[in-house]
Amino acid sequence: MNNKNKETLNEIEEQYNVRTDLAIEAREMVGEEDVEIKGVEVIVDNINDIDLSITKVNILDEYGAKELNKPIGSYITMECELMKQNDPEAHEKIVRELAKQLNELVKVDKDMTVLIVGLGNRDVTPDSLGPRAVSNILVTRHLFKEFGEPEGDGLNKVSAIIPGVMGQTGMETFEIIQGIVNKVKPSVVIAIDALASRRTSRVNSTIQIADTGVHPGSGVGNRRQGLTKESLGVPVIAIGVPTVVDAATIVNDTMEELLVEMKKQAKENSEIYDMINNISEQEKYQLIKEILYPYVGNMFVTPKEIDAVIKRLSNIIASSLNIMLQPSMEFDEITKFLS
Amino acid sequence: MNNKNKETLNEIEEQYNVRTDLAIEAREMVGEEDVEIKGVEVIVDNINDIDLSITKVNILDEYGAKELNKPIGSYITMECELMKQNDPEAHEKIVRELAKQLNELVKVDKDMTVLIVGLGNRDVTPDSLGPRAVSNILVTRHLFKEFGEPEGDGLNKVSAIIPGVMGQTGMETFEIIQGIVNKVKPSVVIAIDALASRRTSRVNSTIQIADTGVHPGSGVGNRRQGLTKESLGVPVIAIGVPTVVDAATIVNDTMEELLVEMKKQAKENSEIYDMINNISEQEKYQLIKEILYPYVGNMFVTPKEIDAVIKRLSNIIASSLNIMLQPSMEFDEITKFLS
Amino acid sequence: MNNKNKETLNEIEEQYNVRTDLAIEAREMVGEEDVEIKGVEVIVDNINDIDLSITKVNILDEYGAKELNKPIGSYITMECELMKQNDPEAHEKIVRELAKQLNELVKVDKDMTVLIVGLGNRDVTPDSLGPRAVSNILVTRHLFKEFGEPEGDGLNKVSAIIPGVMGQTGMETFEIIQGIVNKVKPSVVIAIDALASRRTSRVNSTIQIADTGVHPGSGVGNRRQGLTKESLGVPVIAIGVPTVVDAATIVNDTMEELLVEMKKQAKENSEIYDMINNISEQEKYQLIKEILYPYVGNMFVTPKEIDAVIKRLSNIIASSLNIMLQPSMEFDEITKFLS
Amino acid sequence: MNNKNKETLNEIEEQYNVRTDLAIEAREMVGEEDVEIKGVEVIVDNINDIDLSITKVNILDEYGAKELNKPIGSYITMECELMKQNDPEAHEKIVRELAKQLNELVKVDKDMTVLIVGLGNRDVTPDSLGPRAVSNILVTRHLFKEFGEPEGDGLNKVSAIIPGVMGQTGMETFEIIQGIVNKVKPSVVIAIDALASRRTSRVNSTIQIADTGVHPGSGVGNRRQGLTKESLGVPVIAIGVPTVVDAATIVNDTMEELLVEMKKQAKENSEIYDMINNISEQEKYQLIKEILYPYVGNMFVTPKEIDAVIKRLSNIIASSLNIMLQPSMEFDEITKFLS
Repeated sequence: MNNKNKETLNEIEEQYNVRTDLAIEAREMVGEEDVEIKGVEVIVDNINDIDLSITKVNILDEYGAKELNKPIGSYITMECELMKQNDPEAHEKIVRELAKQLNELVKVDKDMTVLIVGLGNRDVTPDSLGPRAVSNILVTRHLFKEFGEPEGDGLNKVSAIIPGVMGQTGMETFEIIQGIVNKVKPSVVIAIDALASRRTSRVNSTIQIADTGVHPGSGVGNRRQGLTKESLGVPVIAIGVPTVVDAATIVNDTMEELLVEMKKQAKENSEIYDMINNISEQEKYQLIKEILYPYVGNMFVTPKEIDAVIKRLSNIIASSLNIMLQPSMEFDEITKFLS
Repeated sequence: MNNKNKETLNEIEEQYNVRTDLAIEAREMVGEEDVEIKGVEVIVDNINDIDLSITKVNILDEYGAKELNKPIGSYITMECELMKQNDPEAHEKIVRELAKQLNELVKVDKDMTVLIVGLGNRDVTPDSLGPRAVSNILVTRHLFKEFGEPEGDGLNKVSAIIPGVMGQTGMETFEIIQGIVNKVKPSVVIAIDALASRRTSRVNSTIQIADTGVHPGSGVGNRRQGLTKESLGVPVIAIGVPTVVDAATIVNDTMEELLVEMKKQAKENSEIYDMINNISEQEKYQLIKEILYPYVGNMFVTPKEIDAVIKRLSNIIASSLNIMLQPSMEFDEITKFLS
Repeated sequence: MNNKNKETLNEIEEQYNVRTDLAIEAREMVGEEDVEIKGVEVIVDNINDIDLSITKVNILDEYGAKELNKPIGSYITMECELMKQNDPEAHEKIVRELAKQLNELVKVDKDMTVLIVGLGNRDVTPDSLGPRAVSNILVTRHLFKEFGEPEGDGLNKVSAIIPGVMGQTGMETFEIIQGIVNKVKPSVVIAIDALASRRTSRVNSTIQIADTGVHPGSGVGNRRQGLTKESLGVPVIAIGVPTVVDAATIVNDTMEELLVEMKKQAKENSEIYDMINNISEQEKYQLIKEILYPYVGNMFVTPKEIDAVIKRLSNIIASSLNIMLQPSMEFDEITKFLS
Repeated sequence: MNNKNKETLNEIEEQYNVRTDLAIEAREMVGEEDVEIKGVEVIVDNINDIDLSITKVNILDEYGAKELNKPIGSYITMECELMKQNDPEAHEKIVRELAKQLNELVKVDKDMTVLIVGLGNRDVTPDSLGPRAVSNILVTRHLFKEFGEPEGDGLNKVSAIIPGVMGQTGMETFEIIQGIVNKVKPSVVIAIDALASRRTSRVNSTIQIADTGVHPGSGVGNRRQGLTKESLGVPVIAIGVPTVVDAATIVNDTMEELLVEMKKQAKENSEIYDMINNISEQEKYQLIKEILYPYVGNMFVTPKEIDAVIKRLSNIIASSLNIMLQPSMEFDEITKFLS
């Protein structure tokens, strides 16, 4: 089908612009860590006992936004290898820290209604992070509508939706969410999504939260239209975890590393050195297409244990949100609502 | 929790009003088959080779509506034992007949957009009929938006949503659907739902379609607010299958049958005869509560093979909708889109 | 098909002999609590803070075995409403108590190999308790074979199997397990199974463990041949939870209670009193068949939230086994191995 | 943990010996298509309307076995892009052709009992081919045991088992299967397994059947001990589909292709030409490790739609086996038994 072909071509084009959903990687791509970038502030923190690093990238102005190719706003990245492992003690610490960081981006009180949105395709394991997390959110808004304010409980009003992806609904995610937002009028939207990373070392061990919403072309499944304060009329907090590296990135990086290695061995200004420098981007992409044919824009690299890992990560995110959204409840009470 | 208790009480109350979602059962409860009811028209048809019976109950006016406790409109019931069995040949016949009957309730053309809604809880097997059917609908609306009208294909515009239930979203299903309808502006809504029946003989072998929408208190999960032309502003077609009998109904019917049996054995006007007639509804409901304690309003009677049966029924409904919505496609082409 | 009919008839016959898998119910059916039965010892204990009652029924000799229609041996029943609710604190207490009770039936040491067997059909929710529990067992036997004894860990050797049901394998569960036992030579077999109860009040809130193995006709799915010390040559511990009441039992109990109620209202020796006493078993079973037609031997009564409840119960059982089988590990370490 | 590390190291070592489960790829690695290899016979056939190619590689003697690093026997490979797409018409043709090819490897009659074994981990999508296929096999052996030979049906005796993987059972698959074979005494074992391929172009569009059984180190999950006529005492037919390429293979192939490309551009005998030739295997594997760190031996490349594709492939295999094992039944009757 013609349309199908057009779509595939677009996807390949997108691979060409080697893309990352993580501000921390966008920052790395611009230059060395110690060189300051105008309009960008980076603050690094560590929680040593579980080797958790927290990096805040604040994009302060248009200049910084252009440099990093990301909108003005705050991006907080938590990295910890234990996230993806079965370690409930470490997970409790990560959950509490993530709740603390979320609290810095949005303050929830009892007069607000929160709408949590689980983006992605529940039937494609690496893309199912959002739907799975939402299925463990403690929703409460209907209790207020049915019974009036539950006495003494001090609950906040939380609602949640798993909209599905365009191939399942025939609608843009944005259309569905805007329709619901117009009708239900939440005070803030929190969207959870699976992301793509440039590095296998970050896959499933990184959580990024940002106050800039979800942007077109983000996510494992390539959303077409953003969910932002501009488009929805209410603030949008984004929570994302890179769950895959696309195969084209792995192939591309392999070539880069091989060429770097060869350069090291060659004498500077030698024939080899020049030749390596002259291999065109076009030639490289040609190679990517040959290696991955006939799949190209549609192959993922995932760890074998991806099903178990996605379950852990979605539980971490759901628990953090439950704690942060219902501060009157104890940690143990919160887990009672998980299934 | 107080609210919880209030909810349970409401549910028990609802059991008291022995309720059916099927017009054909509402008709049966009013009186014998051969006695005409004012304002109600009943037409029966049969397809003999698969023993499929088709009953149309047309409620013509307010009088009929009051008698049957259902809104004015057309209700078509298809009954066939082979629906729940693994019989692809019979299923193809049922699929084609259901598509034909749907066509009598709504005519789709290329200027319309259809929104299919899968009601119910995908995580509760007997309530998952709607979500499962929707996951096999051929959605096409996004193709028009992205590429303009697909040339030569003659496709109609179909979109679909699985909204979840109130306990999962904190929102009324009605709020979600109205929000989407306002934004996406479909020409007609088709809602698929699991129903409750009064009889085990109808469970999983009956499909009801109606042009009157979905009404409060219908369905396995007790929707609170209806999806109707009045509430949404566009026509609403309902497709339902009774997938459970609630346990209270079974217990109630057991008592009734036992009492009828005893009456037959007793002499008329005897002491026993009077006593049986005098057992109050209150005493009967007291017994129901004792038998089912501590579950009461929350126990279902289901056949053991319910998982396989729900899969078959949702495939039948999805295939019928795909055929009826995309008349330019062949039966075999349609099944290509099923997963 | 003829064979199918024969099978259904057998199943109806089985309903006639109103059957229970629980020794505690077999005891109740024999007579009042305070009347001693020869050859049967009953010891009751309570853990008050979570309202957990522990009943040991010891069948001491052939006389007791005949009275209760169960083999000689120890049957321990733990009953607690919180089992089926989402209450992790209560579950930790139940897990530890169950581990303690299991330890009284079998002592595991490092020279033994344990084989855990998850009976039942993983695709039928109420029958999936065994398969789900086994999927959370910490298996270790292969580590010894591959690497020699893991140093310092003090692990015991545990293996596990989910054999499937006869309709899936074409083999008796007994054939599969005996084949594996002959080859792998475990020191003890522990079999986990979903049971049928006579009472909704016990469904999903009762765990029975016994040192007498699994017997023909037990379980939701009607095993045909037992797993016992006699048949397998090694001791067999059985762990079971009643997860359903069959619909025929509910209907039967409804009639019984109604008749008892009517008797109370009638004068003794009156016409009614006699008539009620004279309703034959045959007449009652005829009624059951009419009420449940066309399903009869194949209808279950389950609570709506059965999927979530089975998950909780299987986690409780798996955690207890993990604690009891790996005493050198901490509770928190054990949960690390759960997925 | 030490053992864990040892295991990972072994896995990396295995990547070093770039390995394929497909005889057709082993053949390709030995040399050009048109150069004959002693002891190896290759016959190619095509079914044009669905572009299905069938390649038989017969390894005739020890010499051929050594050359291809595969045991003596027949290997039949069917390749067709439509396998992985949703095309029921093409699938019916593939199903019938596969049944025909299977019939050439094993003739089943009514005095035989067949045991189908579904290898792999049902919880890891690309490894779940075997378990999913087995769940759609028409098992019949128990009908003979319970009712005697079903009259007039002309059924063959089929049994099936999903043994799980070593990490789930603590037992070698071989131990479980040998135990069952010793007890149940089938005439032939047919084992279904997910394989690894060297090429993305073969992933999910290739089925290999062979009369040589399943060998150590085959499959996505690295079985340790083979299932062969030698080890089990009965003939073993293997059916496999490559469902993944491991990430190390993709990275390795990328380097190879890049180096080949550079060689073409360099003058022969030039400095670059020599340098490229001198890059050691060791240096290449070092690069693989860096690119894939920290995952290395545990990263798969899969297409995004893997869940749907595995479902299609397992249905194709199950249908072929059902047709071939029950020749007295019609194609449409066979599909009645699928769920």
